[in-house]
Formats: sequence, structure tokens, C-alpha cells
Amino acid sequence: MPDHSAPRVYLAGPEVFLPDALKVLKEKADLARVAGFDPVTPLDNESLAAGSPFDKGLAIYRANLRLMDGCDLIIANLTPFRGVGADPGTAFELGYMAARGAKIAAYTNRATPHFERIRDQHYQGQITQDPAGEYRGPDGLVLENFDMFDNLMLAGAIAEGSGILVTHEVEDTRLLYRDLTAFRRCLASFQDTEEQSALFGTAE
Amino acid sequence: MPDHSAPRVYLAGPEVFLPDALKVLKEKADLARVAGFDPVTPLDNESLAAGSPFDKGLAIYRANLRLMDGCDLIIANLTPFRGVGADPGTAFELGYMAARGAKIAAYTNRATPHFERIRDQHYQGQITQDPAGEYRGPDGLVLENFDMFDNLMLAGAIAEGSGILVTHEVEDTRLLYRDLTAFRRCLASFQDTEEQSALFGTAE
Repeated sequence: MPDHSAPRVYLAGPEVFLPDALKVLKEKADLARVAGFDPVTPLDNESLAAGSPFDKGLAIYRANLRLMDGCDLIIANLTPFRGVGADPGTAFELGYMAARGAKIAAYTNRATPHFERIRDQHYQGQITQDPAGEYRGPDGLVLENFDMFDNLMLAGAIAEGSGILVTHEVEDTRLLYRDLTAFRRCLASFQDTEEQSALFGTAE
Repeated sequence: MPDHSAPRVYLAGPEVFLPDALKVLKEKADLARVAGFDPVTPLDNESLAAGSPFDKGLAIYRANLRLMDGCDLIIANLTPFRGVGADPGTAFELGYMAARGAKIAAYTNRATPHFERIRDQHYQGQITQDPAGEYRGPDGLVLENFDMFDNLMLAGAIAEGSGILVTHEVEDTRLLYRDLTAFRRCLASFQDTEEQSALFGTAE
């Protein structure tokens, strides 16, 4: 029984790539519903398009855009994915929702800041400081050093789009995309805030 | 002498992290100008904000949004960055421009498809096929297999946003974010296409 007066939230994140994606997404959707939201997940509109692999991918893209267009906010799982940064697909969705003026909240299951992850995980500590004071890897690329959890476009969008970012260190890598502690806190962060009034107080 | 009737293009990409970023961006802007565009780069509005590192990062985020809001199209450098996928900041910008209905074109200096990069570079070939036919890494995460150059949200946005994607293999890693062969071809792809008429034919 979806409550159409509840704010509709798009639950973005790389958990869609898990073998038990449907189970994890159902758990997230259930938690969101209990918190007063009307949840939508990227697999809700899983396309049955025929055609080439590319056509199938494109159909999923279009379906995800339609889902996002119907949502008032996005809660993005920005846990680093196959590297030191967030999943580029989820980053795209965050940008899409930012341009739509949607509310933006996020969580990550890595508590280490962006700068340290790049320094320790990507460059194994082999960084140097240039004459201008910037830190660079052996490949010459600068390490963003803004005291942020990820790239400044992502951190900026969250700061401007609700301020709700929950970071939580999940030690067990098998649970990296499954642990919902941070997601639960993210949902709870909407309680008793002006974000809540903005989302729940007006019938659009 | 900027020509304000020329379509304004946002030149996104991780070359902003190079030590010679200003030089590379000037070269890109010059090429874009010769091709009839009015180019804007993420460093054009480099913020001189005071305050904490976080405040400075946030000021750059805001400045980049203002720059994008003034642009008719984006040409994104989606060369993989610190891993197998595109820079999440550039992916965010692509999503932002997609939601604004801007034209979208992109290039990458890696010609290998997404699936193969993940299989060979990230998983060193250690992938298996599950009963449903999906390929998965030892961590259980699925490898998107849509015959696309990167995540389907990025490939989908380009297919829907102009169809212009240039892939070109740059062997010399020192030139990975500097080689402009693919960028030049991307600019040239706008010649004699309906994208050109759409962009250059109407004065907005």
C-alpha cells in the first residue's frame, strides 16, 4: 500500500551488483517505508527489453531516469566501488538529482576520508608535496585535499542538498555493500530536521 | 573575443588534476574555439574562497555548477581514473547536464570495453559465470555486460544526448590525460550532423 503523500526516495548505490541485490534492496525499501518514505529502487523497473546487450543497457538507463524523475529525493550509497571512489553510475545519478533540485542524502561504509584513501590505498603512501603545497601521486595527479569523504562534486551536492551524510566503517568486506547501519542512520537523520519539514510538510 | 552566439561547451574531465592542468585546458579550449564553440573549463572560475578546506571545496562545487548552468553542452573526458571507471566528479557533471537537457558528448583514452577492463584489470581474469549467466568477480559483484565503454548510466546519457562518443587507445600512460586525439575527433564529430544544426542553428 504505497502512501502517495509520502516523499518518494530513489535508493541509489552499487548494491545492485550483488548476487543478493533484490534482498538487500527490499530490506532498504522496507526500512525507508518504516521511516515514512515511499521508496523506489533501480531494480523496480528492471527492463525486459529485447535486442542487443547495448539496447538492454540503454533501456535500463531510460527506466532509471523515469524512476528518478518521479522522486523527491535520493539517498545514495557512495561506498567506494572497485577503487577509491564512488561508483560512477551512482555519481551520475547524484548529479542528475542535483540538477532537478531534489533533496540529496548519502552514506558510505568507509569512514576514511578521500585524501587518505587515495594516499594509502591507491598510492601506497608514495605521495609528495609540490612547490605550491599540493600533494601528488607518482603519476603527477593531485590528491584533492578538502577534508571531504569523496570528490568535491559529490560532497558539495550533499552539503547543498540536505547536509545529510553518514559515514560508518564496515570492517568485513563481505558486508561492504550489505551493512545497513549507515543507511538506517541516514533515514533517521531526516527526523526532526528542517529537511523533514520541507519534504513531509508540503503536498506537491 | 568570445562569440556569444557560439554554443557554450563545458569541458569536463580529470585533466584538472594534472600538474599542467592549465596548459592542457587552454589547449582544449583553443581547439574548441577553432571548432566553433565557446569553451568553459572547470578552472575558469577557480575560487579564491577563504575558510576551511571544506569551504574551499564547496566554493569550487558552486562555481562549477554556475559554469555548467551557462552551457549548452558538455564534452566529458571519461578516461578511467584511479581504477577501471570514469572519475566520479566527471560522472556527476554528466548527470547534472543530462538532467538539464544539455547535449552530451564524451571521449575516453582507453579503447577497451568496460567489461574487459573490469575482468582483466580489476579481477585479473578471475571471474565466473553464475547459473543465471551473469559474470561475477570473486567478491560476488556482477560485471555489467552491455557492450558499453563504462557504466550504463554514462553510456546511456551519451547515446541519448548526441550519440557522440570517441574511444581511442593511448598507450603511453604519461599521456593518458593529455593526449587530445580523441577530443579533436569528438569536436569534429559535431560537423555536418543534426547535432550541429541543433546547436548552431538556433539562437537561444
